[in-house]
Amino acid sequence: MLVLSGPNLDRLGKREPEIYGKATLAEIHDQIAAAAALRKAVVDCRQSNHEGALIDWIGMAADDGFSGILLNPGALTHSSYALYDALKASSLPTVEVHLSNPDAREAFRKTSLVAPACVGRVAGFGGASYTLALTGLLDRLQG
Amino acid sequence: MLVLSGPNLDRLGKREPEIYGKATLAEIHDQIAAAAALRKAVVDCRQSNHEGALIDWIGMAADDGFSGILLNPGALTHSSYALYDALKASSLPTVEVHLSNPDAREAFRKTSLVAPACVGRVAGFGGASYTLALTGLLDRLQG
Amino acid sequence: MLVLSGPNLDRLGKREPEIYGKATLAEIHDQIAAAAALRKAVVDCRQSNHEGALIDWIGMAADDGFSGILLNPGALTHSSYALYDALKASSLPTVEVHLSNPDAREAFRKTSLVAPACVGRVAGFGGASYTLALTGLLDRLQG
Amino acid sequence: MLVLSGPNLDRLGKREPEIYGKATLAEIHDQIAAAAALRKAVVDCRQSNHEGALIDWIGMAADDGFSGILLNPGALTHSSYALYDALKASSLPTVEVHLSNPDAREAFRKTSLVAPACVGRVAGFGGASYTLALTGLLDRLQG
Amino acid sequence: MLVLSGPNLDRLGKREPEIYGKATLAEIHDQIAAAAALRKAVVDCRQSNHEGALIDWIGMAADDGFSGILLNPGALTHSSYALYDALKASSLPTVEVHLSNPDAREAFRKTSLVAPACVGRVAGFGGASYTLALTGLLDRLQG
Amino acid sequence: MLVLSGPNLDRLGKREPEIYGKATLAEIHDQIAAAAALRKAVVDCRQSNHEGALIDWIGMAADDGFSGILLNPGALTHSSYALYDALKASSLPTVEVHLSNPDAREAFRKTSLVAPACVGRVAGFGGASYTLALTGLLDRLQG
Amino acid sequence: MLVLSGPNLDRLGKREPEIYGKATLAEIHDQIAAAAALRKAVVDCRQSNHEGALIDWIGMAADDGFSGILLNPGALTHSSYALYDALKASSLPTVEVHLSNPDAREAFRKTSLVAPACVGRVAGFGGASYTLALTGLLDRLQG
Amino acid sequence: MLVLSGPNLDRLGKREPEIYGKATLAEIHDQIAAAAALRKAVVDCRQSNHEGALIDWIGMAADDGFSGILLNPGALTHSSYALYDALKASSLPTVEVHLSNPDAREAFRKTSLVAPACVGRVAGFGGASYTLALTGLLDRLQG
Amino acid sequence: MLVLSGPNLDRLGKREPEIYGKATLAEIHDQIAAAAALRKAVVDCRQSNHEGALIDWIGMAADDGFSGILLNPGALTHSSYALYDALKASSLPTVEVHLSNPDAREAFRKTSLVAPACVGRVAGFGGASYTLALTGLLDRLQG
Amino acid sequence: MLVLSGPNLDRLGKREPEIYGKATLAEIHDQIAAAAALRKAVVDCRQSNHEGALIDWIGMAADDGFSGILLNPGALTHSSYALYDALKASSLPTVEVHLSNPDAREAFRKTSLVAPACVGRVAGFGGASYTLALTGLLDRLQG
Amino acid sequence: MLVLSGPNLDRLGKREPEIYGKATLAEIHDQIAAAAALRKAVVDCRQSNHEGALIDWIGMAADDGFSGILLNPGALTHSSYALYDALKASSLPTVEVHLSNPDAREAFRKTSLVAPACVGRVAGFGGASYTLALTGLLDRLQG
Amino acid sequence: MLVLSGPNLDRLGKREPEIYGKATLAEIHDQIAAAAALRKAVVDCRQSNHEGALIDWIGMAADDGFSGILLNPGALTHSSYALYDALKASSLPTVEVHLSNPDAREAFRKTSLVAPACVGRVAGFGGASYTLALTGLLDRLQG
Repeated sequence: MLVLSGPNLDRLGKREPEIYGKATLAEIHDQIAAAAALRKAVVDCRQSNHEGALIDWIGMAADDGFSGILLNPGALTHSSYALYDALKASSLPTVEVHLSNPDAREAFRKTSLVAPACVGRVAGFGGASYTLALTGLLDRLQG
Repeated sequence: MLVLSGPNLDRLGKREPEIYGKATLAEIHDQIAAAAALRKAVVDCRQSNHEGALIDWIGMAADDGFSGILLNPGALTHSSYALYDALKASSLPTVEVHLSNPDAREAFRKTSLVAPACVGRVAGFGGASYTLALTGLLDRLQG
Repeated sequence: MLVLSGPNLDRLGKREPEIYGKATLAEIHDQIAAAAALRKAVVDCRQSNHEGALIDWIGMAADDGFSGILLNPGALTHSSYALYDALKASSLPTVEVHLSNPDAREAFRKTSLVAPACVGRVAGFGGASYTLALTGLLDRLQG
Repeated sequence: MLVLSGPNLDRLGKREPEIYGKATLAEIHDQIAAAAALRKAVVDCRQSNHEGALIDWIGMAADDGFSGILLNPGALTHSSYALYDALKASSLPTVEVHLSNPDAREAFRKTSLVAPACVGRVAGFGGASYTLALTGLLDRLQG
Repeated sequence: MLVLSGPNLDRLGKREPEIYGKATLAEIHDQIAAAAALRKAVVDCRQSNHEGALIDWIGMAADDGFSGILLNPGALTHSSYALYDALKASSLPTVEVHLSNPDAREAFRKTSLVAPACVGRVAGFGGASYTLALTGLLDRLQG
Repeated sequence: MLVLSGPNLDRLGKREPEIYGKATLAEIHDQIAAAAALRKAVVDCRQSNHEGALIDWIGMAADDGFSGILLNPGALTHSSYALYDALKASSLPTVEVHLSNPDAREAFRKTSLVAPACVGRVAGFGGASYTLALTGLLDRLQG
Repeated sequence: MLVLSGPNLDRLGKREPEIYGKATLAEIHDQIAAAAALRKAVVDCRQSNHEGALIDWIGMAADDGFSGILLNPGALTHSSYALYDALKASSLPTVEVHLSNPDAREAFRKTSLVAPACVGRVAGFGGASYTLALTGLLDRLQG
Repeated sequence: MLVLSGPNLDRLGKREPEIYGKATLAEIHDQIAAAAALRKAVVDCRQSNHEGALIDWIGMAADDGFSGILLNPGALTHSSYALYDALKASSLPTVEVHLSNPDAREAFRKTSLVAPACVGRVAGFGGASYTLALTGLLDRLQG
Repeated sequence: MLVLSGPNLDRLGKREPEIYGKATLAEIHDQIAAAAALRKAVVDCRQSNHEGALIDWIGMAADDGFSGILLNPGALTHSSYALYDALKASSLPTVEVHLSNPDAREAFRKTSLVAPACVGRVAGFGGASYTLALTGLLDRLQG
Repeated sequence: MLVLSGPNLDRLGKREPEIYGKATLAEIHDQIAAAAALRKAVVDCRQSNHEGALIDWIGMAADDGFSGILLNPGALTHSSYALYDALKASSLPTVEVHLSNPDAREAFRKTSLVAPACVGRVAGFGGASYTLALTGLLDRLQG
Repeated sequence: MLVLSGPNLDRLGKREPEIYGKATLAEIHDQIAAAAALRKAVVDCRQSNHEGALIDWIGMAADDGFSGILLNPGALTHSSYALYDALKASSLPTVEVHLSNPDAREAFRKTSLVAPACVGRVAGFGGASYTLALTGLLDRLQG
Repeated sequence: MLVLSGPNLDRLGKREPEIYGKATLAEIHDQIAAAAALRKAVVDCRQSNHEGALIDWIGMAADDGFSGILLNPGALTHSSYALYDALKASSLPTVEVHLSNPDAREAFRKTSLVAPACVGRVAGFGGASYTLALTGLLDRLQG
């Protein structure tokens, strides 16, 4: 399972903790790995502020042997048709993940350009959004 | 935990199974109850095609002793400011639940009027959307 | 054949007769029954001001043995995604019926949310809109 | 005089008191009755979370002998063309009433679908909005 | 009765039969004439791909002795204010006719510019849309 | 209490009496003064066709000893952000007043730019809108 | 001077005389010719319901020796980019002419697609709109 | 006849002469007076940069004995609902006048808020727009 | 191969040569024929200012033995749903051709209504747009 | 250098100090004068709540010998095309000045109608916005 | 000649072949090089998923000795004003290239932000879109 | 103080000098450094065409010891929610800087997505925009 996080998520813990929580991204990555281990799944967690790097990773994901993607595109959720295209081009099922609940915030966050290329969304549970999405996607892949 | 489902969800299993899956709502209610039992939580699962009934139930939820709500408003997601007001008026944390991924379907499904009154959303995992949301909300309440 | 009429149609004859005509809904129901009898068809005519009741009836229509629906949603035509979902979930062909010609009236009446789930529309002939639609739908079912 | 209140108004006093005040709907109903008594008018105060019930009541109001309506549609103000149609179909003058000032709140509250069928609006005075509207409508009917 | 069909309707039978059916326009014209004969009415059926020709015919219709118009404007439904003006300028009642149900297709087909100048619409019954409209308009003229 | 009326309200009685009534502004000012006297309140009623004059008066109102404002901005309701700013800058509670019910008229009258800076609105009662608003605001100030 | 009139203007006198007046187009053409004769100018007045014919005439106007165009495009004013292109392609100054005042009528008449290719507009004076435009354009050409 | 010019028209001759021409407003006023004298009409030409002054003048025009208004609102054309209301409140026929052709310029100039209260428009003839409008309005008043 | 050009393209060479170039349409037709001859293809080049004529030609194209269409709809690109329908009804692959690059010009030229019925577009190469499109379409048909 | 401030800026210091700061306009005028003196420039600082007065001053500025304008239009920034026209008509370079950062506040403040007629903008520095703009404009005029 | 391809085009052949064809980008690059060789032109073909890299390359293109650019921006076509700016800043003529016909796909693909900075567009011919564009641009540069 | 410039600003001097001036970015960086030195402040000036690099730098700015940011996002101003998020996540005050006045240019430049996260804006003074912003921000930090 490939776990990708987009712009500014490297600042977690320091960035507006009243919205995004106090956990750092490294701590969340550890939680995801722990949850995956319980399911005997392997995860590779990566972050980049560069849209291009996220596209590179998604493009290579199937060739690299991954069977699914958890993607938190950060603010690129609302502006990146290129990520949408990357997911469409990929043959892997993808779940859109958000720490906060974007639909409950600024108006621009109500529009997800990547959603039409995703099988589902989990939002609003802080770092636990990733682990819930992991559970859901593993169940789907195994079910 | 109060679990509410809105219009047309009583038709699950018969209604467009390629989108909503083959499980009936009764079967899903059983799955939710089973998952709740594992967490030693109690759930009360209800469905109505009447917006007014959903509002009645949300309005009484706190008085009735519930500590959280899972709400799948069906198509009312996109048209009911009254449900939004009901959730705002309630003091209980609510998670928005969808079987399919509304953002990946018709344009009108991209707008959720109730989202700004919810702490999170789980969408796209069929009946498992409810159990993932249950897990997330219980963790949040207990965490 | 199930014939459904939505909000305020119980006021026909009293309600703005220059737009909707002088016939009461009971009189129109008699005309529909008479026209159906000529075609050896059976109709069940119902009216409700409650969106939920209309959804209940549509949801049960196939199980109740109906083979088609004539639906005049009244003002819910322009606001109810839930009726649209109900019709999509139903396996029965539906014709949208209006006494007046909504496209020739206020701007909000130009948008029909239920139309994409209907096989056709008859509008503008007063109570005769129902009987024309009945003829058309019977021909279609029998043709 | 018929006094109608829509969705969530049964929660007054408990619902966001910083916006809607601390008085319960029962207390407001008592205030309206007291004010009516001073004018030797009779009021019948009702509340429902069901749009259909409000339409039923409006549809029957003239037959039931009422000479005017005070309507607080709650959030249905912003979504119900069916209430607009019900008021148009009724022959009774109606005043739109709001506890808060909707135009000063969320954007969706700036649009009233029922206003074009009302003779006036009183908003922003808490429970006193009803009694001011009662005074205004009685003066109009008697003037 | 004047029966007019607009752009591309001369291609019926060859044009996307899954949407428009297999009957040619000539066959439909024969059906209309037969239905008219039953009612002892006379119809004159014409088709043109030229907006100007349709306007010429509508402009002359009253002078030519017609007492009503059935108009299927094809795609001009959605772009021709000039047809709207022509119908307004004419003193004859007009019914808008469509083979398919435009409101159930591409977004641009949801807007009818000619509808505000028509007494009614029949749509979605294939060639039978014309004969239903003929029946409805004759009843109206004779009723 | 400061009572301000904006553009064209000096023409009352002569201006479209079927919409605005037959009373002149002077007569309405007298009614307001009489109603205020009953409450032992003092009012100062002013009118100007100049937006700038209204802003001057609002800006000085607190310094001049007023404790509240009744404002009928006329057509400036729909175009003047400067009046909105003036009210925000003022420390006095303001009620928006209209003789007719703007939401029931042309589309442009449905948007009030000043409403977000007002505590309430009274509309549709002719000259009595002012006196109802006066009563409501005095109760609020004294309550 | 070339004087062109578009769709439905051949119906003048018969078409909605409360909006367009009682004069026929032939009578207006006579008035234009008379006014031109006073200025020792020659006019050629033409009408067509076909957009293509209007474009043909505009395209040939300079070659045919005309020095200016008066154009009443009728409803094509609001839908024809092709007329706009024709006027841009022509080297002749053009005045847009309307019998009624389009900006004071239905919303769609507020947008003129041809205006950006015209030197001016005269609207609202009935048939006299043509003669005023003729005077204005001749003065411009001679001034 | 009252001739009113709005903001910035006092700068004519100095203001962007490639758009508005080289004549000063005083020179145009002289031309209008000369044209009026030929028709034995009297004109009073005024200019103000204050919307309120224009409204004052329009409000008093009938009382002051004028029988018609020529109004060039300048940029207020596109923003002043108050001028629209002033014209509606007046009983005098008004022609909207522009030196340039606003529909051929920036997008915001395509919308005239005052047009629905005017009998006609003359635009694009420089100072001659006023004299053409004068001729047209006098003919109308005398015709 | 059928080569169609729409409104105003007969004016090429005379029409705004800084945008459309100096070649006449006849010269471009010769270039297309020459390029076709090199490919041993036969072309028939036609132009009309009438939308109806273009639709007639497209409707007959398959019956007339053509195997593909090059279509430069001129300004009808942006307004003609009827051309779109004609292309959809035709069984022939069509390439949209433009001399200039419409997306780089006025805003209205950014929307092509016919594009969804075309296999491709070539724009911006003057007359060579046709020959490039011819090459591309022949390769496609032969490849 | 002419320094103009629009509606409500006379209330500075008293008006929402958390947004606009505690300095009065008189104190800011003194700061501007001091900064100008350092550059051996002369400034004339004026304020009005009347749009017309601002237009009068801008119209006369060049004749009055000013060589540049600093303009804080207050809320007129968002509604006054007449100020835009005034600046276009003037031959003087103008800088738009704001105490707060309008783009970071309510949505309506994101649109500046005057900006297209200004050479630059300085916003968000409180009273220092004027002095920074003064420095920038002097450098530009002298550079 | 510089040939640039944007996000996800490295996945060609693997990515949705029913839309984009089976050829890989390397194969298309070979075809472009072969076509260029026939014209004795040299091409340098590059791809990146990073918007910044594409901007770097465009910015350096003229300095690097290129005389023209073929640009397939992928999904950045619809979101990147920065690419538009890069092309405007460059002195080289650019042709926009697409494998599919974007105007015939999802709504968001109908808007090209880079088009206004391009001399032309070739779309819909698969890999041959590049070679047609190469031919067109070489002819233009050499013609 | 961290000074960041976004896409295409590396081309300054070569890029459209009539809009952006003749100075290169290196020269502007020298001017900023000189101005900072006068204030005994230290600046670090960086440029990148990669949105991700700008986000990296903003994310690290506080940790790297900077006390404020001057940001010229170039065209990313109008499309990058990720930069907005980066600024929100940062604890440093930021001023938005532009060489030209974006509000006076193409429509898309009127919307700044980053402005709501900035304390102010300086635009339109060429390279001096940076130094004015530096002065303003230093005064603010020290004031």
